[in-house]
Amino acid sequence: MTSSARRPLLSRFTPPQIIAVLYLLGILLGTLALHLPGMQRPGANLDSVDLLFTATSAICITGLVVADTGEAFTRAGQIVIIFLSQIGGLGIVTFGTLVAMLAGRKVNFTERQLLREQINALNVGAAVSLLRTILAFTLVVELAGAALLALRFVPQFGWGEGIYNAIFHSISAFNNAGFVVVPGGMSQYVQDPLVSGVIAVQIILGGLGFLVQLNVLTHWQNPRRNRLLIYSKLTLATTAFLLVTGTLVYLALEWSNPGTLGPLSPAGKVLAAFFQAVTPRSGGFAPLNTEALVSGSLFLTMVLMFIGANSGSTGGGIKTSTFAILMGSAWNLISGRTDLIAFGRRIVPENVVRAGTITAIYTLLVAGAFFALLVTNPKLDFTHLLFETISAAATVGLSMNTTPQINDPGLIILTVLMYLGRIGPVTFAVAINARRTHKSLIDYPPERDILVG
Amino acid sequence: MTSSARRPLLSRFTPPQIIAVLYLLGILLGTLALHLPGMQRPGANLDSVDLLFTATSAICITGLVVADTGEAFTRAGQIVIIFLSQIGGLGIVTFGTLVAMLAGRKVNFTERQLLREQINALNVGAAVSLLRTILAFTLVVELAGAALLALRFVPQFGWGEGIYNAIFHSISAFNNAGFVVVPGGMSQYVQDPLVSGVIAVQIILGGLGFLVQLNVLTHWQNPRRNRLLIYSKLTLATTAFLLVTGTLVYLALEWSNPGTLGPLSPAGKVLAAFFQAVTPRSGGFAPLNTEALVSGSLFLTMVLMFIGANSGSTGGGIKTSTFAILMGSAWNLISGRTDLIAFGRRIVPENVVRAGTITAIYTLLVAGAFFALLVTNPKLDFTHLLFETISAAATVGLSMNTTPQINDPGLIILTVLMYLGRIGPVTFAVAINARRTHKSLIDYPPERDILVG
Ligand SMILES: [K+]
Ligand SMILES: [K+]
Repeated sequence: MTSSARRPLLSRFTPPQIIAVLYLLGILLGTLALHLPGMQRPGANLDSVDLLFTATSAICITGLVVADTGEAFTRAGQIVIIFLSQIGGLGIVTFGTLVAMLAGRKVNFTERQLLREQINALNVGAAVSLLRTILAFTLVVELAGAALLALRFVPQFGWGEGIYNAIFHSISAFNNAGFVVVPGGMSQYVQDPLVSGVIAVQIILGGLGFLVQLNVLTHWQNPRRNRLLIYSKLTLATTAFLLVTGTLVYLALEWSNPGTLGPLSPAGKVLAAFFQAVTPRSGGFAPLNTEALVSGSLFLTMVLMFIGANSGSTGGGIKTSTFAILMGSAWNLISGRTDLIAFGRRIVPENVVRAGTITAIYTLLVAGAFFALLVTNPKLDFTHLLFETISAAATVGLSMNTTPQINDPGLIILTVLMYLGRIGPVTFAVAINARRTHKSLIDYPPERDILVG
Repeated sequence: MTSSARRPLLSRFTPPQIIAVLYLLGILLGTLALHLPGMQRPGANLDSVDLLFTATSAICITGLVVADTGEAFTRAGQIVIIFLSQIGGLGIVTFGTLVAMLAGRKVNFTERQLLREQINALNVGAAVSLLRTILAFTLVVELAGAALLALRFVPQFGWGEGIYNAIFHSISAFNNAGFVVVPGGMSQYVQDPLVSGVIAVQIILGGLGFLVQLNVLTHWQNPRRNRLLIYSKLTLATTAFLLVTGTLVYLALEWSNPGTLGPLSPAGKVLAAFFQAVTPRSGGFAPLNTEALVSGSLFLTMVLMFIGANSGSTGGGIKTSTFAILMGSAWNLISGRTDLIAFGRRIVPENVVRAGTITAIYTLLVAGAFFALLVTNPKLDFTHLLFETISAAATVGLSMNTTPQINDPGLIILTVLMYLGRIGPVTFAVAINARRTHKSLIDYPPERDILVG
């Protein structure tokens, strides 16, 4: 008691507890800030539940909206929203990286030492000043993105408005926030390689997470000294696979759809299909009208949203590594192999157990929230609600525009879902669990005789 | 080569190969039989794809139909269908039990000895005559069911028609086949405790599988000598949990729905809700109009279908043990426990890996077939097609009546899905894989450093 009283406040809590409380605090403060006068434009009439939903969507970098952000909020309100997104994005990256590198409670990151060296290579002293590196990296990417976007936005909107839009959407893209304030929405740039390209690259970069970004960067600077982690190889390969497959399938299914790719030039079709493959993981910008997609594309989008991006990144979902391990394990069982091999290494069974369990928990969360939404909003469309549920849980923000029709209990369900989806259901559970990991005190006899499947 | 030529034909193949080929043969012969003259009623006009679909639905004991079985097929055609269902049901139970008890290739069933003793207790000599016990058990349950159903059907339809209907629906129920030929369908008996009760009990019994049936029976005869297997306890508890939860949720959601429970008496509501909870696992008889269910009930039905019944039973799905292990594992991760304990035993991690992998493969199969259906039938409803896909994969047979509208490519997708869903995607893969389970020849270094989730 006396010793803990002398310790600094933060060190008395576990990283999962800190992250759970900080995001809750962010939601509270954000909701209060959006209640201040001068945040909403006249006639927007958003009530408290709407503002709670918006603040949660911002700090959990989801991007689902109850009303068009540019039309409902003043410049001040928009700045609050993008500020919350930046804080939310930085928070998840910082804590995700810290947990991976230092805590190692669930994650047994033995290559931590290697990573520390790579951080040192970037001239940072200790792991505590990790935040400085992340901040610097974020600033560089966001400034570069804003500068490139300004090349298009300044001629279109003039200096003030143009630079504001460039900064807003650069932050929104790199943090996978998905908020859009430019009048007319993102779909007007669907054939513009500059705007679409910059935003797509920022979404991908943000979705890699700091560990992979740093690892790739230092490896590129000095390949001999800084080798690529197996984890980096695995997630980069999975990301590339999902992007290429997604682009090709959207191209094939939407090529002549008059509501989506139909009217575009061949080059425009390829660019739009690529953007459409990037955005479910978890950018949330809609290059095409989601409601106009054919049902096959809609389902593919749901699957890509559910998979999401990398661990400890600004993206959500079950994560690419989880997906890759499950697929590898499935292929193993089908082809009669016993060892799961990736890039010359044997993935230990504990990781397969964790991948299966994480996916089960995530599925349970989505299924439970979806069921609750169906019961509270029985008149709304099944498919539309399923889409919004997955989008909220994976913090994507793509929408079939049903969210504005969802009633207050439904919005609160989605609010909780965005929060749990962002900090992770397991992180949340570990945070509220007082006790640490514990093995059973009794040594139960092992049971192998269960027929499974 | 010479030695294998001298061995009997069947022993040259593995059980998975035998099962894969026999079901394929059954589909072929069944399709040919349904092509014979005198099978269809005048005006039914079912083409070859329809008959292939029907034969597959019968031998894979699914019960999905392209047309009302009673209206489209003559008595002879109906007898072919119920004969195929009986063969399909017996086949899966026999092979499921054989694989569990003897092959033990994937399943490490060390309690095999105990079970052999229990079979001996039922006065059967060797494991080869297992089939005799299963046949006797099936005959007893089906005759008892038919006798009870005849009490209602004979007064309603007269002797000949009444006894025919009693036998047909008793076979259909115990084999979880889901075919109905009684004019007016099953919903007319929704408040009849005799018909609904007998059919529900037969569906549940059939879904337990022979291992659990036998274990419970011998335990009941001599509790000291024949103890209940952990596997039996686990699957019985899960079955009870799913039935009770399902009944309560259907009651709550459908209580005042004019299209389903609304017009029924309170006792009738309870009976109908119970039947509705039984049938997705994988009976396929529809006590209520599936299309009239509120969307929450519809989703619950999809979830229950996906979970299914027990391994080696006439039911489909990922199986109750798979579901129970994943849920237990999820709860463990959330509550910070490391050992998975059930009924005083520690479930080994290999079973968790298998549960996660089986579910991943099953999900992949359903998602792939659903995607193919959406692409080939873009005009049909997303939710309806999802429902029919899960129903086919889990060999349930519940339907939103969209199957008759599905085009030929779509019907062939569902045919393949019913086949794979029935013999199991892993069984199929193992069957076509020439090589046996093999460990990698190279000893790859282990990799723990993967962020998962
Ligand atoms: K987002
Ligand atoms: K069935």
